[in-house]
Amino acid sequence: MSGVIAIDGMGGDDAPAAIVAGALEAAREGIEVALVGDQAILERELIILDPAKPPSTLRIVHASDAIEMGDHAALEARTRRDSSIYIGLQLVRRGEAQAFVSLGNTGAVYALSLVLLGRIKGIERPALGAVFPIPSGPVLVLDVGANAEVRPNHLEQFARLGVAYMREVMGVRDPSVGLLNIGEEPTKGTPDTIAANELIAASGLRFVGNVEGRQIFEHAADVVVADGFTGNVVLKTTEGVVDITFSEIRKAANSTLRAKLGGMLLRPALRGMAQKMDYRQYGAAPLLGVDGVVFIGHGRSDGHAVANAIRTAAVAVDRRLREVLTESVGTPASSAEQSGTTEANA
Amino acid sequence: MSGVIAIDGMGGDDAPAAIVAGALEAAREGIEVALVGDQAILERELIILDPAKPPSTLRIVHASDAIEMGDHAALEARTRRDSSIYIGLQLVRRGEAQAFVSLGNTGAVYALSLVLLGRIKGIERPALGAVFPIPSGPVLVLDVGANAEVRPNHLEQFARLGVAYMREVMGVRDPSVGLLNIGEEPTKGTPDTIAANELIAASGLRFVGNVEGRQIFEHAADVVVADGFTGNVVLKTTEGVVDITFSEIRKAANSTLRAKLGGMLLRPALRGMAQKMDYRQYGAAPLLGVDGVVFIGHGRSDGHAVANAIRTAAVAVDRRLREVLTESVGTPASSAEQSGTTEANA
Repeated sequence: MSGVIAIDGMGGDDAPAAIVAGALEAAREGIEVALVGDQAILERELIILDPAKPPSTLRIVHASDAIEMGDHAALEARTRRDSSIYIGLQLVRRGEAQAFVSLGNTGAVYALSLVLLGRIKGIERPALGAVFPIPSGPVLVLDVGANAEVRPNHLEQFARLGVAYMREVMGVRDPSVGLLNIGEEPTKGTPDTIAANELIAASGLRFVGNVEGRQIFEHAADVVVADGFTGNVVLKTTEGVVDITFSEIRKAANSTLRAKLGGMLLRPALRGMAQKMDYRQYGAAPLLGVDGVVFIGHGRSDGHAVANAIRTAAVAVDRRLREVLTESVGTPASSAEQSGTTEANA
Repeated sequence: MSGVIAIDGMGGDDAPAAIVAGALEAAREGIEVALVGDQAILERELIILDPAKPPSTLRIVHASDAIEMGDHAALEARTRRDSSIYIGLQLVRRGEAQAFVSLGNTGAVYALSLVLLGRIKGIERPALGAVFPIPSGPVLVLDVGANAEVRPNHLEQFARLGVAYMREVMGVRDPSVGLLNIGEEPTKGTPDTIAANELIAASGLRFVGNVEGRQIFEHAADVVVADGFTGNVVLKTTEGVVDITFSEIRKAANSTLRAKLGGMLLRPALRGMAQKMDYRQYGAAPLLGVDGVVFIGHGRSDGHAVANAIRTAAVAVDRRLREVLTESVGTPASSAEQSGTTEANA
């Protein structure tokens, strides 16, 4: 069984409505959900969504404070111990929940995860991984924003974390790894990517070498590692291109009578395709390398995406993600270089 | 008049066929074209494409050597003085041509441009700019791969170059500039992007601040500056997403009889949209900051894209790009920091 999934009731563009809707959807399927946030607000939202008694699998854990978006709030997060993020992660630390999901301030979740849960031995910088819904199957890109700057050995650690996640949680057999770079030759890129290429090549992982931006979408590797700056830009560029392309398709399909008729006939097939390529199908991004199961969802998630995030977290708990990661990165090449400095920049 | 445009007859995936076709198309419109490469090969290709006498605006300049793709060839480029890239740039240096266009080895074109043409005063690192065909109008992203690593003052120089290019060649009135970053707040990103944000904010340019990957496609700025590593990843990610999206649309439009009919009716409207979003409409990427007009085209360009590249170069010459850039960057904040180190990594 998947234990209890704690979810931040106060984080995200459409909080608390989208969160409560998603929590209800997941709880009705039998997943035990702890909804963390202002009790009065969350109860009111529950009644609006469903005047009947909520399922017994859903309970509210009160948190009187909610951390806003932005860097400033992230910096304050450590001292705001009544916030929904603090209390949610505290539940995981105490073993009262087995995973925490938030759509809120990424920097705050990252910083508090480090403080309250700590890191897996052998991992200096936990990374945020985003699952890209490529039609041929999921591709995990990490880091997508937790660490704006990394060293080559961090990239090698990201590779280990990513491979373990794809194998255990996403069910990919023997996942391959690529290093995001600006050319396929091992000598391409910056001194850091050249050094990282050597480290990962010697890691024993199934390394396919450097991968260019376009090759992510050709599924050149199951796991693509990058510094958090580049990974974040890739993620947001992808969202931007997908959004504008579908928006232009809609415009084209309304431009003439003939196009309107065509669009109407094509719509069911396009909708299936759009769903297949929708990043919301995987719900949330795992924060890999912290000593606990933590997922950060897209701020724009709707209720259905929130439910997917909770489901993904439940699968991760079922598959013993925390233990598997600890085992997978047990013999890092870089453990001698342990460093205490970490930062959240996303 | 636009002077003579020299084009590398030997560079690109479909060279020389695509190059000769494009050169013919442009020359027939009255643009004077110097086709640089192996005379026998180019003449044979000309006869295949058009058995009649070629237009008087087209001439062949013989070059017995052709530089292959790859880092190794780029490193050798300086010593291979019979190559089509060397001889083409030599024509510009001597004033026998006013611009050079190549679809070949980016690293070689970059290195030889520095050697043969030099840099504009005030510019330490020339940058490769890519025009993104956003439906609301062109957006220039630079650098997209000439410099894998840059300092903050280089980013400020890119901003000046980009603004001048968009204003003079693309006809954008008072172009705005954004800094590619992983958040909108000025404190986001790496120490280098934070410093660059300050420099550009103080530059007197119309600076809109940090721009995230998705905002490129919302046209948040006319010019988006980035280090060459991130810019290259953005360019290739965009190509990857566009390719996979259209490939999936084609699949969806063949999935059922109903979808097939819809696709047939929608096709003309979608084709118009695809053309509007096709990077080939602008033909080639300007190498901004070298003391001469140089464009680097996409290796996969077809004849029509090659003709567009030549047309764009001719417009740049007409609008006196070289002189305008020299004037625009005449008072750089960073001229005290002149450095001789340059490198080509793309």
